[in-house]
Amino acid sequence: MNNKYVHGYTVRENVRLVDQATTLADILHSDTVYPAGSNVLEAGCGVGAQTIILARNSPNAKFTAIDQSEESLRAARDRVLSQGFTNVTFHQSDIFHLPYEDNSFDHLFICFVLEHLPNPIEALLCLRRVLKKGGTITVIEGDHGSTYFFPESPDARKTIQCLVDIQAEMGGNSLIGRQLYPLLKKSNYYNVNVSPRMIYVDSSKPNLVEGFTKNTFIAMVEGVKNQAIRSGLMKEADWEQGIRDLQKTTGEDGTFIYTFFKGKALK
Amino acid sequence: MNNKYVHGYTVRENVRLVDQATTLADILHSDTVYPAGSNVLEAGCGVGAQTIILARNSPNAKFTAIDQSEESLRAARDRVLSQGFTNVTFHQSDIFHLPYEDNSFDHLFICFVLEHLPNPIEALLCLRRVLKKGGTITVIEGDHGSTYFFPESPDARKTIQCLVDIQAEMGGNSLIGRQLYPLLKKSNYYNVNVSPRMIYVDSSKPNLVEGFTKNTFIAMVEGVKNQAIRSGLMKEADWEQGIRDLQKTTGEDGTFIYTFFKGKALK
Repeated sequence: MNNKYVHGYTVRENVRLVDQATTLADILHSDTVYPAGSNVLEAGCGVGAQTIILARNSPNAKFTAIDQSEESLRAARDRVLSQGFTNVTFHQSDIFHLPYEDNSFDHLFICFVLEHLPNPIEALLCLRRVLKKGGTITVIEGDHGSTYFFPESPDARKTIQCLVDIQAEMGGNSLIGRQLYPLLKKSNYYNVNVSPRMIYVDSSKPNLVEGFTKNTFIAMVEGVKNQAIRSGLMKEADWEQGIRDLQKTTGEDGTFIYTFFKGKALK
Repeated sequence: MNNKYVHGYTVRENVRLVDQATTLADILHSDTVYPAGSNVLEAGCGVGAQTIILARNSPNAKFTAIDQSEESLRAARDRVLSQGFTNVTFHQSDIFHLPYEDNSFDHLFICFVLEHLPNPIEALLCLRRVLKKGGTITVIEGDHGSTYFFPESPDARKTIQCLVDIQAEMGGNSLIGRQLYPLLKKSNYYNVNVSPRMIYVDSSKPNLVEGFTKNTFIAMVEGVKNQAIRSGLMKEADWEQGIRDLQKTTGEDGTFIYTFFKGKALK
């Protein structure tokens, strides 16, 4: 797995990732439920934001959550245990060198990971090896290019483009959501079904204004401020204006739209 | 109502608009059903693409369908009668000079009309006058800025931007879908609820590839080719490349995304 992450490193970012998963849990995960006794691999569990939702939604499934970062795994383990879940085993492991036999798992789950990888098809093929025939893979990714809002603002668009450019420089692809269908097909999964999960926010939905637009999306954009300005992608004054304009979309007359994509397929 | 339409004039375009409504009928209209005996005004019925769906979904409601164009009204009337529906009355009329008493209608319906108007709030206020207190308004609009696709292509984006620019030049706003919430609020409707209707297309959905991406969206973009090139918005070679690139999104590995917005509110 790629070592360079746009987000996920600092404590503040950990909180954000966990907030994000809590706010979006129903929209993204409520239709992911695994049968009792099934063995499920979560690849790239990070700090456990999704792991805890998986463990809660399928209390009688057995999860193996892997990540390459010891530090993230420790945070994930603490979180899952502190909530009283005992159906998750944690392993430090790399998606491209999985220490498991062929056909080991009944199901695979991978969320917000492929966006960071320069070679997502290779990752999906490595994962496919350890999946049993007839088992499912579930992939969830965002797509920063799915973002639009009112009022419009070229500066706000540019701050989002910084996120896209920085992730691309690091070998990732933050426009990957729209590509889940061809990626899964090219990785030899079949019965591929991709279902978009749009987050539409207006001021009649104060929980999404706070939980998604402000505390997830704008916080994520703000997280690359220093990188964006240091690398000359934007001038600081324009950046500040862009963030102010993004904040306007959380006002009484503002709207904000973002879409996640959830793909499910079979081996 | 504004006289200048980006689409809706030629026979070919009429066919397209009707195809479009047929393909999208369920996604956009299946949750619009009016009680028996209720009086519903459809403002800006055009050639009747939506009228026939309204008449079919609510066979015991009484519709008044208005348009400023005699020619469109004639096409709408022929279409509705040829399908055997007798619950629609047609009037030539202008949204800004409605020949009806205050509080005349139980419900209002307006679809793909506000995008053409320089003053959508004024239109919504004029409509509100003839709506009974407690009655509903249903507004449906697209948003060309909601379009994205794979593979990406700057030329394809530019052809879509031509559509946006040409509609803006004519006083319209093809990015209006995202604004339905503030527009309805500012026009003094309440209990405003906006529900996005995303059209996600990949090659596992051949009906949408044909019916939406090719025959609705790309056909709509192609409809402004002459205007776009004549007015210097794009060079012909770049335009042709953009259309070829849009067509690639209908291939086996392509995806295409567009979102309509449906607003419902009360007087």
